[in-house]
Amino acid sequence: MKTAVFGTGIVGQTIASRLAGLGHDVTVGTRDVAGALARTGKDAMGNAPFADWHKQNASIKLAAFAQAASASEIIFNCTLGLGSVDAFKLAGDANLKGKIIVDISNPLDFSKGMPPSLSIVNTDSLGETIQRAFPETKVVKTLNTMVCFLMVNPAIVPGDHNVFVSGNDAAAKATVTKILNSFGWKEGNVLDLGDITTARGTEQLVSLWVRILGKLQTPMFNFNLVK
Amino acid sequence: MKTAVFGTGIVGQTIASRLAGLGHDVTVGTRDVAGALARTGKDAMGNAPFADWHKQNASIKLAAFAQAASASEIIFNCTLGLGSVDAFKLAGDANLKGKIIVDISNPLDFSKGMPPSLSIVNTDSLGETIQRAFPETKVVKTLNTMVCFLMVNPAIVPGDHNVFVSGNDAAAKATVTKILNSFGWKEGNVLDLGDITTARGTEQLVSLWVRILGKLQTPMFNFNLVK
Repeated sequence: MKTAVFGTGIVGQTIASRLAGLGHDVTVGTRDVAGALARTGKDAMGNAPFADWHKQNASIKLAAFAQAASASEIIFNCTLGLGSVDAFKLAGDANLKGKIIVDISNPLDFSKGMPPSLSIVNTDSLGETIQRAFPETKVVKTLNTMVCFLMVNPAIVPGDHNVFVSGNDAAAKATVTKILNSFGWKEGNVLDLGDITTARGTEQLVSLWVRILGKLQTPMFNFNLVK
Repeated sequence: MKTAVFGTGIVGQTIASRLAGLGHDVTVGTRDVAGALARTGKDAMGNAPFADWHKQNASIKLAAFAQAASASEIIFNCTLGLGSVDAFKLAGDANLKGKIIVDISNPLDFSKGMPPSLSIVNTDSLGETIQRAFPETKVVKTLNTMVCFLMVNPAIVPGDHNVFVSGNDAAAKATVTKILNSFGWKEGNVLDLGDITTARGTEQLVSLWVRILGKLQTPMFNFNLVK
């Protein structure tokens, strides 16, 4: 498929590499192409600069948000949650119309210290916010409950564990579920929670996730629903 | 141990019966003893009236909050989250001083329809609210991430799955963990997340829990942390 990945950070890089490895056409979207390529030095999390990654992934295109959206059928939102709506505004309604947005981002607020809290009240979610702001898109919230390495390769953590899916459009969820399957997610481990309001549940799970991270001192874990 | 269980609903009944079955001295605390015994007919969830349960559990005492607290070393909070602080105010500081409060309750707000949202902002929790309001108690948040039947008998759901513990006092958490073990929780499945602020994580997990309940149409499930 023709895919766009919004965001040049480690989540965007990880998703983009995996999609390209699976044979998809991938364009990474960013606010400032020249700026993304000009950055040197590691980021706050110790990751190498984007340009280094891009050299090693030369088949992946880099473009401004609008151009990346225009070239794609499906857009993975890997921007920071606080900047996601602005990124899609820069993409422009005409380039978004009818497209699937796979919303991986969480509305994390680091301004009150660590661990972060959510910047959105618990009767709303980032997934719903994006769907409301861009009503002609089909937002599917998924993958936001784990570290990015696990998103694209669930077998890193042995055994069964879950990825959740939320969205209003059944066909869009089916398309995204097929991509999840291609990432390695077994059919039975993908749990469709219902419409986009159920993204409140998975975004609020992040509040527990960051505390388990603090306890285990590794992000290589996930939750398995047992019944 | 001398235990009190605040709340006459199905959660309080389930915890009280289990504690009594394990040989503990149990007093159920309520706002209005005569009123609790006088209620007839099923509650909103279809549970039998308290008096019916009390006849079948004659060894369990019933008393006003203050008397129940006074008679106990440890108090299980099984009141509705919106009424928990008021219940402990009625118990009175003198009767609470130095006691362990096992906070099982969630701050659920049903006023905006189903599923409920949390009545407390995501930078706070009910566990912290109770600890702040009653600083001479030792609040341990636990068991609030599952249906009550599972709290006292985790084997109802086969295999490994987790119960979380949050609290500021290590000795209080050790005491509560022993009680959890006696309920059937294996050592390795009890996860101490840290201080009482980590209750934000487990209370916000409830936002996902209610949506999985809606999807599965059964509350007989739990989460297992895999790594």
